[in-house]
Amino acid sequence: MIRTLAFDADDTLWHNETHYAETQEAFRSLLRQYHDDAWIDERLHATEMRNLSHYGYGIKGFTLSMIETALELTEDRLDGAGIRRVVELGKAMLAKPVEPLPGVAEVLQKLAGAYDLMLITKGDLFDQETKLVKSGLGGHFSKVEIVSEKDEAAYAAILERHGIAPSAFAMVGNSVKSDILPVLALGARAVHIPYHLTWAHEVVAAPVDSPFPVLESIRDLPDWLAAQSAQG
Amino acid sequence: MIRTLAFDADDTLWHNETHYAETQEAFRSLLRQYHDDAWIDERLHATEMRNLSHYGYGIKGFTLSMIETALELTEDRLDGAGIRRVVELGKAMLAKPVEPLPGVAEVLQKLAGAYDLMLITKGDLFDQETKLVKSGLGGHFSKVEIVSEKDEAAYAAILERHGIAPSAFAMVGNSVKSDILPVLALGARAVHIPYHLTWAHEVVAAPVDSPFPVLESIRDLPDWLAAQSAQG
Repeated sequence: MIRTLAFDADDTLWHNETHYAETQEAFRSLLRQYHDDAWIDERLHATEMRNLSHYGYGIKGFTLSMIETALELTEDRLDGAGIRRVVELGKAMLAKPVEPLPGVAEVLQKLAGAYDLMLITKGDLFDQETKLVKSGLGGHFSKVEIVSEKDEAAYAAILERHGIAPSAFAMVGNSVKSDILPVLALGARAVHIPYHLTWAHEVVAAPVDSPFPVLESIRDLPDWLAAQSAQG
Repeated sequence: MIRTLAFDADDTLWHNETHYAETQEAFRSLLRQYHDDAWIDERLHATEMRNLSHYGYGIKGFTLSMIETALELTEDRLDGAGIRRVVELGKAMLAKPVEPLPGVAEVLQKLAGAYDLMLITKGDLFDQETKLVKSGLGGHFSKVEIVSEKDEAAYAAILERHGIAPSAFAMVGNSVKSDILPVLALGARAVHIPYHLTWAHEVVAAPVDSPFPVLESIRDLPDWLAAQSAQG
């Protein structure tokens, strides 16, 4: 019997990867006179991965990685105005409005009466808190957990801290790697709602026979929950 | 009767402001050919304050503010190598070892048997978690709270979440603004252990008759606690 329903935030409740993709396109256009797009993308991704252990996830680290990549790809020739443009790209991402994905607000509203709703997101604390406030969805969640990594240990610590049994917990999110597999490993349930873009770092080789439910939209979640209840 | 003893981290358990001061000196030396030190400091502080609502606290935001200030102060003339140097200054801060201040390890060891020890720190989630691991002090704390701002509301939420009565709680820290005043406002106790440097943003006009205890070193904390116990 599911009592606590937890949601991922970025690309589950609101757009996120789209903003990265748009910013990356602006970054390419800044460097297109020096290199082709594929090489720019490859070097940026390599810098991000190299810096993950310094910066963690989030827009500030991404901005610093863009600056470093721009210097590398231009052999330090990118001028001050170019660097300033990259800093502004990062700030523009932070300033974006946060619009809930279609169906999110009404589904959360509907489920909040029947379930204890939790938000579990990884990334930059300040940035994630700001987005939750901007989204207007904060009131639906009785618990908010912002963690630096969403792995099995992190989920185990959250369940333990709140005294939640895995059998009473389900996670909903767009990332198989961060929202689904570690939750299933704990014996809890997880529902995958794919987003149309997935960051390369989050891509996993999916098992052939998908052992978890995949929904097309959050609008299908109440029916899935009703079916679980009927079975349980 | 104090049962939960909470500690601030930066400049209470380990050096922090010193690293900022060292980095700021390196930043000045990069720009000294353009401006005098006081003006560089003033512009950097102004940029940080302007960016606080975008970036929050922490080294990544500080690095981005240094880059922005360097461009402003050189009218975009700082070259790629100079920008690269600023990025590296930020990374060097993140890579610094975390050494507990004198007395910290033995005092925490001693108090962990008698009190429930909590860490309450503000700033970048990833960075603060990394520092706690590097410090080797993590094992002493039963609870770790990393928040984006340490104001009265944040402390109230922490006490509520853990079911702690203000009368059973004391906070220990170096910042009057973040560690002392908001805690006293909740009716809990707070102990000030000053650090020899205070970030301008954390400076408050202190009340003339100091209504909170000020200790010279964390080594004096066990005696202060024993005195409280004797009184209570």
